[in-house]
Amino acid sequence: MRLSKMHLKTLREVPNEAEIPSHILLLRTGMIRKLVSGVYGFMPLGWRSIRKIEDIIRQEMDQAGGQEIHMSAVQPAELWEESGRWFAYGPELWRLKDRNGRDFCLGPTHEEIFTDIIRSDVSSYRQLPLNLYQIQTKYRDEARPRFGLMRSREFIMKDAYSFDRDQAGLDRSYEEMYAAYEKIFTRCGLTFRPVEADTGAIGGSNSHEFTALSEVGESEIAYCEKCQMAATVERAECVDAPASSAEELPLEEVHTPGTKTIEEVADFLGIGQDETIKALLFVTYDEEEKENGYVAAFVRGDRELNMTKLINALKIPEHSIEFADEEKMGAATGCVGGFTGPTRLHDCTIVVDSELPGLRNLCAGACKTDYHLKNVNYGRDYKADIITDIKTLKEGDPCPVCGAPIKHARGIEVGQVFKLGTKYSESMGATYKDENQKEQPIVMGCYGIGVTRTLAAVVEQHHDENGIIWPMSVAPYHAIITVMKPDDQTQADLAEHIYNELAAAGVEVLLDDRKERPGVKFKDADLLGIPVRITVGRGAADKTIEYKLRRDADKEEISADEGIARTIEIVNKEK
Amino acid sequence: MRLSKMHLKTLREVPNEAEIPSHILLLRTGMIRKLVSGVYGFMPLGWRSIRKIEDIIRQEMDQAGGQEIHMSAVQPAELWEESGRWFAYGPELWRLKDRNGRDFCLGPTHEEIFTDIIRSDVSSYRQLPLNLYQIQTKYRDEARPRFGLMRSREFIMKDAYSFDRDQAGLDRSYEEMYAAYEKIFTRCGLTFRPVEADTGAIGGSNSHEFTALSEVGESEIAYCEKCQMAATVERAECVDAPASSAEELPLEEVHTPGTKTIEEVADFLGIGQDETIKALLFVTYDEEEKENGYVAAFVRGDRELNMTKLINALKIPEHSIEFADEEKMGAATGCVGGFTGPTRLHDCTIVVDSELPGLRNLCAGACKTDYHLKNVNYGRDYKADIITDIKTLKEGDPCPVCGAPIKHARGIEVGQVFKLGTKYSESMGATYKDENQKEQPIVMGCYGIGVTRTLAAVVEQHHDENGIIWPMSVAPYHAIITVMKPDDQTQADLAEHIYNELAAAGVEVLLDDRKERPGVKFKDADLLGIPVRITVGRGAADKTIEYKLRRDADKEEISADEGIARTIEIVNKEK
Repeated sequence: MRLSKMHLKTLREVPNEAEIPSHILLLRTGMIRKLVSGVYGFMPLGWRSIRKIEDIIRQEMDQAGGQEIHMSAVQPAELWEESGRWFAYGPELWRLKDRNGRDFCLGPTHEEIFTDIIRSDVSSYRQLPLNLYQIQTKYRDEARPRFGLMRSREFIMKDAYSFDRDQAGLDRSYEEMYAAYEKIFTRCGLTFRPVEADTGAIGGSNSHEFTALSEVGESEIAYCEKCQMAATVERAECVDAPASSAEELPLEEVHTPGTKTIEEVADFLGIGQDETIKALLFVTYDEEEKENGYVAAFVRGDRELNMTKLINALKIPEHSIEFADEEKMGAATGCVGGFTGPTRLHDCTIVVDSELPGLRNLCAGACKTDYHLKNVNYGRDYKADIITDIKTLKEGDPCPVCGAPIKHARGIEVGQVFKLGTKYSESMGATYKDENQKEQPIVMGCYGIGVTRTLAAVVEQHHDENGIIWPMSVAPYHAIITVMKPDDQTQADLAEHIYNELAAAGVEVLLDDRKERPGVKFKDADLLGIPVRITVGRGAADKTIEYKLRRDADKEEISADEGIARTIEIVNKEK
Repeated sequence: MRLSKMHLKTLREVPNEAEIPSHILLLRTGMIRKLVSGVYGFMPLGWRSIRKIEDIIRQEMDQAGGQEIHMSAVQPAELWEESGRWFAYGPELWRLKDRNGRDFCLGPTHEEIFTDIIRSDVSSYRQLPLNLYQIQTKYRDEARPRFGLMRSREFIMKDAYSFDRDQAGLDRSYEEMYAAYEKIFTRCGLTFRPVEADTGAIGGSNSHEFTALSEVGESEIAYCEKCQMAATVERAECVDAPASSAEELPLEEVHTPGTKTIEEVADFLGIGQDETIKALLFVTYDEEEKENGYVAAFVRGDRELNMTKLINALKIPEHSIEFADEEKMGAATGCVGGFTGPTRLHDCTIVVDSELPGLRNLCAGACKTDYHLKNVNYGRDYKADIITDIKTLKEGDPCPVCGAPIKHARGIEVGQVFKLGTKYSESMGATYKDENQKEQPIVMGCYGIGVTRTLAAVVEQHHDENGIIWPMSVAPYHAIITVMKPDDQTQADLAEHIYNELAAAGVEVLLDDRKERPGVKFKDADLLGIPVRITVGRGAADKTIEYKLRRDADKEEISADEGIARTIEIVNKEK
């Protein structure tokens, strides 16, 4: 492709709205274009890279036995009501009506549709296992779309669904997809880590997130350098503090004026924060968005509440809970802002972290302004509706597997694999007849890859201050020929020769024949990040060119023929 | 691909809802699946054929200088308000709101988006011409979705937009696209005819529809066998009857009891229907869907009103006009159901067909129950707000170019090319600076292909009573190997050998290794319409097979090696 004919609009300035490198660089290279908040289009170079990622995914999915299909983005509400997700999914489900007032959504995921296909098409164990996938446009009406392709409202996703006879079959399908994902992300040039993950709104028993490591990622992962433990912070199990064998001391109300935080009360009383109980207060909502109850969650004072674990413990949708107005909640339950403890609370669901019942003589709020209670003990002084792990595994906490200190890292979730089990097949009636003619629920898995987000993750991991440094496999073009003076016939002819030779060898090559200053061309070539750059300048008379890889600092003056040969070699090796 | 592993669900019965062959066969082969009315998904075989059509389009578009991009399906209302189409498009525009109440639509077409790109990216004549295209999911909230992929609510379309400096540039771009379309539809195996078309809601000056000829098509075209004239019936110009030189006779009111139709009044008075005037009465609506006026349209009694021409003459959106309630309209305008003529009408827009002013002494309704007027003449007895061609070119009418009798045919609109001119660039401010630094509006064209509808059109033209007969170029697989007895090791081995040889040569091959009766397999192979069928049966011991093309009745017993060679040859020639 000749750059003089290509629609290319690079930007010198960093767009105001962009904060992270991938967003900045994808906009500056003109590869993506914002239409409105969270909605992007792909221009020629951006779309080429997306299609390369899609092709890598398609090859590995087919290799792993997947069959590609293509379902609609528009989905009828009825199916979502059947699975129970019409309410559970919350406001991120982008809803619409047709001209007859019938309810639809724009699919954020396709479990319902695929389960619907299978329940009507599959009747016998002989038709299983199956793995169906699609690469398709998905929607999520995000409250705060941001970071360009990282969190957008319309995006491209590969979603696959496996259908097996039993749990052992699901385990095999899951392992195949896990292995395919490792190949896919490796081929895309990503440094990633598969980590255990929460199953969130999709539901199911077991899940891994594939996380591309990156400072700007929105996923926080906890991992252990000693053993193989790695999980999202939402998911990571915590080790409870050992139970105390201390004697229970008498409950004592103490005056603690103005000590509204854990830090203040611990300082005031001269005790450790790990000798206190922290309270967090919530209100919950029903399907009509009416308040339907209060929740008080308690963790040890030095811990942090893990919201995902709390929501899972309550078995409610993520969007149906928020921090309570303490005054309003106080009137109903007896809580007092800054001085709430588990004792003296009423008419609310009390959720207590799993380690608290084992600890003795803790300090907690007295549900009375400027007062705390000392020597609070579970059983004697308070009871719980739910006792479970609701705390966050922090950096330095002991690894739940081996006890070594935990590390944290940030990453971008580029893929996720789920064992759904029979959640959808049971709610939607997808069964098959086994060898004994007995009806059995089909056992399902689902497997997603954020295609557009993967593009952003590649840029996050492959750039420098001058622009993108594409891995060959997903580069929009493999090579760029920069002609210093396109009006010089010798240079133009040599460039044309190299261009034709490379193209004939299957190299995807750009010819920068624009009437621009060399400085502009070099800046654009660096910004666009094309892996191989061949510069045709004064040496053209002697048939020499400058050969440079975008990822290396070195340039070399070599013959045009050697430049062609080296380019073909590296492209064939790395593409 | 082994059929025993493929997700394939063919149907023996004709689905109730399906009326036309493509709909019936695409459902019976399990290639498409209905989700809800007008919304379909593609199963493995269907999706393979769609991707082949997409690839043919992509190759020819790239060859013609197009650059592929990919814009969002979700579009903000603001851009449509700028172009004036938020109202003009009517209820087929599928509208939705985001969580903040902002208005969006699901794009039925992308003129606004592409114009928005170009107005921000293009500033100089040096950046033109440009042709950008995408293959993408489109939406139309049809009142009556039907015929499967023919008229659906979510569908795949290729849309391209050309941007030129001037009309001469647009003419070139248009010709290039026209030529590319001829190649594309030829490669897809379609028999088609490019016909002049109305520009409808998109707007613009000049357009051709590419019509795949088919009895079940929704487009009616008028063509001349003597000259090259071919146009949609909506668009086709009519030849006015020659003006009469007869003397104007005195206006006369006659009693014509109960003669509400043209036929009745002509019979009653003993005159030709071409000596009468036919009235058609309409009400129009404004943007708030309130009635804002009445329209009376008049054509010669033997003519048919052409609704498209009337709407174009009135310069209103298609959805803002409908037949009037004659009683209600009568109170306002003096019209009388069954007895309305152009004389004595008031307070309504009178549109008169172009030939009426030249004719003399016609009979028209008297705007009085049971009475007509004789010797009605334009000028003396009635006037018009608009005089233009609003009649339909019927079969047998004279060709507007050469005068020979016109023929009609039906077809499926698979593509359309438009000269938009400066309609969008002017309303949305897309300009460039010419060589003299003068701002000029960019001159645009747009070019659509219904990808999913093309699939249906191919099936309409290529099937028999047993199923589909795919052209090689868009067949989901090139060849199918039917094994009579998969449990017979000799047969299984030979089939496997042929399968591997064909696959190694790049033939896309299905191996029907299912444990089904041969009759079932043959029926499925015919239904699926795979171009080459190789049957491995008793002859396997002698390494002979049966070779059959789906399109031919003949079968041949030949050696397996010759079967392989012939298959590779025909696939390479026709794919």
